[in-house]
Amino acid sequence: MKLTEEMLKSFAQEKIEFVHRTGLQVLEAKPGYVKCLMPARGNENHMGTMYAGAMFTLAEIPGGVMSLACFELGTYVPILKNMSIRYLKPARGDITFETTLPDEEIARVASDAQENGKADFILTGELKDADGLVVAITEGLYQVRATF
Amino acid sequence: MKLTEEMLKSFAQEKIEFVHRTGLQVLEAKPGYVKCLMPARGNENHMGTMYAGAMFTLAEIPGGVMSLACFELGTYVPILKNMSIRYLKPARGDITFETTLPDEEIARVASDAQENGKADFILTGELKDADGLVVAITEGLYQVRATF
Repeated sequence: MKLTEEMLKSFAQEKIEFVHRTGLQVLEAKPGYVKCLMPARGNENHMGTMYAGAMFTLAEIPGGVMSLACFELGTYVPILKNMSIRYLKPARGDITFETTLPDEEIARVASDAQENGKADFILTGELKDADGLVVAITEGLYQVRATF
Repeated sequence: MKLTEEMLKSFAQEKIEFVHRTGLQVLEAKPGYVKCLMPARGNENHMGTMYAGAMFTLAEIPGGVMSLACFELGTYVPILKNMSIRYLKPARGDITFETTLPDEEIARVASDAQENGKADFILTGELKDADGLVVAITEGLYQVRATF
């Protein structure tokens, strides 16, 4: 079953209570491209910039959304294996994160998962403020596992 | 100013709204040793185990608590530079995290910060379930910056 963009947004924003509480928004979600936003309000640290865990969540959720957008729900389940985040600048205001997965890589992952029952893929991305300043960068190692 | 254990707990559990919403508890906090707990309730993912971002938060907060426990508030400010987390097993039930910083390392950081205005230190730790099963491991690179 392929999910529509509305279903992907609803899944990411409402399915996990922890994420729902943050007010995270999926701005765009399609095979190969996901963009999310974390609002500043309610997610500040003791210095008034965005709390590190909110930034992690902003960068983590797109991996699940990407998996659901690219690989059929019910056939593959995504899991997160490793994630690293590097904080570069204080994160002021709402922060966005976008990540891409090229067509060839989507095809490679689907083919490997079909053949071996699972396949790893890496998603990298930048967290940016409203002025386009990169405040953090991340690298996540995800795995899709075949359920057939 | 040195913070008491009660002040450290209150700071970690209540000062950051994002963290307060998770119900994170500081079980023990003293110079060189911090232990925290993340309750399962309200922090589950779509599969009923603990959401990756809740586990990250559980492992991130102790770095701030450790800094406040070891280095005088008002003299040093802690920041997080990098953090990596490796997920090993599904995290079922409440999860705890503990981390230590040896006396010699505390002294080295304080001395470096005094001399250079800042000093880096690494905190590693294991996230465990109630049976002691290690479900994830983390490594955080923190920095204390002198404000004098």
